[in-house]
Amino acid sequence: MKQNILYAQSGGVTAVINASARGVIEASGRRADVFGGVFAARDGIVGVLDESLYDLRREEPATIAALSQRPGGVFGSCRLDLDPFETHRHEYERVLNVCAAHDIGCFFYNGGGGSMLTAARLAEAAEELGYPLQVIGIPKTIDNDLFATDTSPGFGSAAKYVAVSTREAACDVASMQATSTKVFILEVMGRHAGWLAAAGGLAERTRGELPLVLLFAERVFDARQFADAVRERVESAGYCVVVASEGVRDASGDYLSVRQRSQVRGWSQLGGVARVLAEEVGRRLGYRTHWAVLDYLQRAARHLASRVDLEQAYAVGEAAVGLAAAGRSRVMVTIERLSDAPYAWRTAATDLQSIADRERPVPDEFIDAEGFGITEAARRYLEPLIQGEDWPVFADGVPVYTPLRLQLRPRKLPAYTPRIGDHQGA
Amino acid sequence: MKQNILYAQSGGVTAVINASARGVIEASGRRADVFGGVFAARDGIVGVLDESLYDLRREEPATIAALSQRPGGVFGSCRLDLDPFETHRHEYERVLNVCAAHDIGCFFYNGGGGSMLTAARLAEAAEELGYPLQVIGIPKTIDNDLFATDTSPGFGSAAKYVAVSTREAACDVASMQATSTKVFILEVMGRHAGWLAAAGGLAERTRGELPLVLLFAERVFDARQFADAVRERVESAGYCVVVASEGVRDASGDYLSVRQRSQVRGWSQLGGVARVLAEEVGRRLGYRTHWAVLDYLQRAARHLASRVDLEQAYAVGEAAVGLAAAGRSRVMVTIERLSDAPYAWRTAATDLQSIADRERPVPDEFIDAEGFGITEAARRYLEPLIQGEDWPVFADGVPVYTPLRLQLRPRKLPAYTPRIGDHQGA
Repeated sequence: MKQNILYAQSGGVTAVINASARGVIEASGRRADVFGGVFAARDGIVGVLDESLYDLRREEPATIAALSQRPGGVFGSCRLDLDPFETHRHEYERVLNVCAAHDIGCFFYNGGGGSMLTAARLAEAAEELGYPLQVIGIPKTIDNDLFATDTSPGFGSAAKYVAVSTREAACDVASMQATSTKVFILEVMGRHAGWLAAAGGLAERTRGELPLVLLFAERVFDARQFADAVRERVESAGYCVVVASEGVRDASGDYLSVRQRSQVRGWSQLGGVARVLAEEVGRRLGYRTHWAVLDYLQRAARHLASRVDLEQAYAVGEAAVGLAAAGRSRVMVTIERLSDAPYAWRTAATDLQSIADRERPVPDEFIDAEGFGITEAARRYLEPLIQGEDWPVFADGVPVYTPLRLQLRPRKLPAYTPRIGDHQGA
Repeated sequence: MKQNILYAQSGGVTAVINASARGVIEASGRRADVFGGVFAARDGIVGVLDESLYDLRREEPATIAALSQRPGGVFGSCRLDLDPFETHRHEYERVLNVCAAHDIGCFFYNGGGGSMLTAARLAEAAEELGYPLQVIGIPKTIDNDLFATDTSPGFGSAAKYVAVSTREAACDVASMQATSTKVFILEVMGRHAGWLAAAGGLAERTRGELPLVLLFAERVFDARQFADAVRERVESAGYCVVVASEGVRDASGDYLSVRQRSQVRGWSQLGGVARVLAEEVGRRLGYRTHWAVLDYLQRAARHLASRVDLEQAYAVGEAAVGLAAAGRSRVMVTIERLSDAPYAWRTAATDLQSIADRERPVPDEFIDAEGFGITEAARRYLEPLIQGEDWPVFADGVPVYTPLRLQLRPRKLPAYTPRIGDHQGA
């Protein structure tokens, strides 16, 4: 009997994660010699646990093709990682029971570092329990902090959005500076890695074109150095645009942003570094400031997706199918860079275990000596990732999203209530 | 001798204000029988006072055409309104001396309500002092609060950006709600008018498609009603997207956002209502939230400009030239709506004095009975304004801005130091 594929989305979603789903669905359709159905779990691993599986063969090909146009995780994502097999054996047994009930031989998990750990644990548990499950990771993260891959789908589009937003905002502040705002501060995501702050550097097409100050999560924030850099820009260009990682910390290791603690589960969420910086600029330099916080918009802005990113998102889904057809398991698809200019890349694979829960900060050689800008090496790395536009179809002035049927497969097992995740993050 | 036109940009800039400049420059070129040169003041009225005038006839036609692609005020804007003639006669004399020195017979002021007051005062002063100056206002404001015109250029593009951002963010939150964020809050501009919050309603193509809560500056904020509305959305749809005017106030009339006072000039700036609302939702309902603040991005996002808005921005610049050629003065160009569907409009003119410093809130019939959504009447009004896309030219992954020569005319008068504005606003 042909095996079925189960695909699930996990962690923070991106503008192009559904393009990976499309890659999986279309590529598996082309390998009907090997694969039977393709199912998607509702809300990631949660839907696997409670046996909520969408049957994707029931969708029209045009609907599947239109997945590339839609941001967010169309099947639902989750913030729930599986705990270790040793202590939570029942969860793994449940997952494998669901797989067995629906003849699932391949599990594709589309997520970031934490999700790859879950995938690795599941692969191990399946082996331990003697269930023949091929587990393949499909990368995605706007943070670009996944190890062993040159980049991760989702990052290129977020980076393009940050670069374009920074460039547009610079035009605005430049025109206000004579009598009003001189400093604009843009807060971008990146708790531990400054990749999206680095992308702010792509707002300028040539070095020095814009008076930018980038604040990397990788650099200790020094208020005086920061103020000096801002003043220097304002004195020479009349204004300054700051792009700050939400995860900027001071010398004592504290986040600059005030931590907010939820009433519910003690989780903490960053946000507000822009305002702290604005107050700093006002107090130290007396300049008028404005600030913006992109938050989800930077990872949802499909309208400004990078074409390269979309292609890579599709390709990693497609590659997962190829790896599965070749009998591989316990691997994550990676993107390998062959050259910067002209930009050339291909998909490859790496051991799941080797990348799980590891992080990849912006390397020192990508941050300039002053600490507030990117180097030419960073530009060579980053620029290819934001190339090309792929405007979605609009109607009534907004993007069209083709609705899916999203028909759940009939359940075959007794009900099971998965715990709801209490993990940090967004 | 043919008269010269002086054009200036004033107040907060928009994604399409340079299209109005283009309209002025190209239309006056077509009326070379009437008009000589076209100059642009650097930084609005500031550049008039200090005789910083760019000679626009020195720019290439292709450069002028490319103005429509560039957000912000390319000649610089200002936050400086002229004080009354009675007390500040010298400022008006200076403006008219500059006009006389450069054979300027027409002054076009491209701005919002405050700028129109300056334009009206200048027209009156010119008459009083016997200088033959035609003064014509060209509307622009993303706030859509200008009186006597159906809409103002800049609003349609900001509205489209808000609608698209809201729609994209909704896709994101919808996919996170099972285990993580259930409420996303988007803070938009609008200190006194909720037009941009209303535009959030355009995120849905059919009423009820998305679980939205819009907070209008025109409605008193009631924390319990707000929490009830959010809970109702979360319970029925699983999540909720809030679009809030920065100017939301409680029953005592206080802004919900914490006021920030600058150290420098005692100006106050709104910002932060999103975070206040997020805390409210967390405390009252226990839902996880995320929030974003658009700030300048919503008025600078030329990449997502409305084509209708761009056309109107050009048309009001062109119409100003027509009015000037017809000998009119003391008028502001307006946009007159002829029908909603199909949308038809034309430019007209209204007395400058009649609109100066008046405001136009979102009317009651545009806000639904619950107070958190827009009515069908609002949709009929708003929807035509965000129609059509006009993607700018991209290179290196970001929009291209064709550089202008921006050559200043030689000064003919003694130096003059204009006071720098201490007016509120951004």
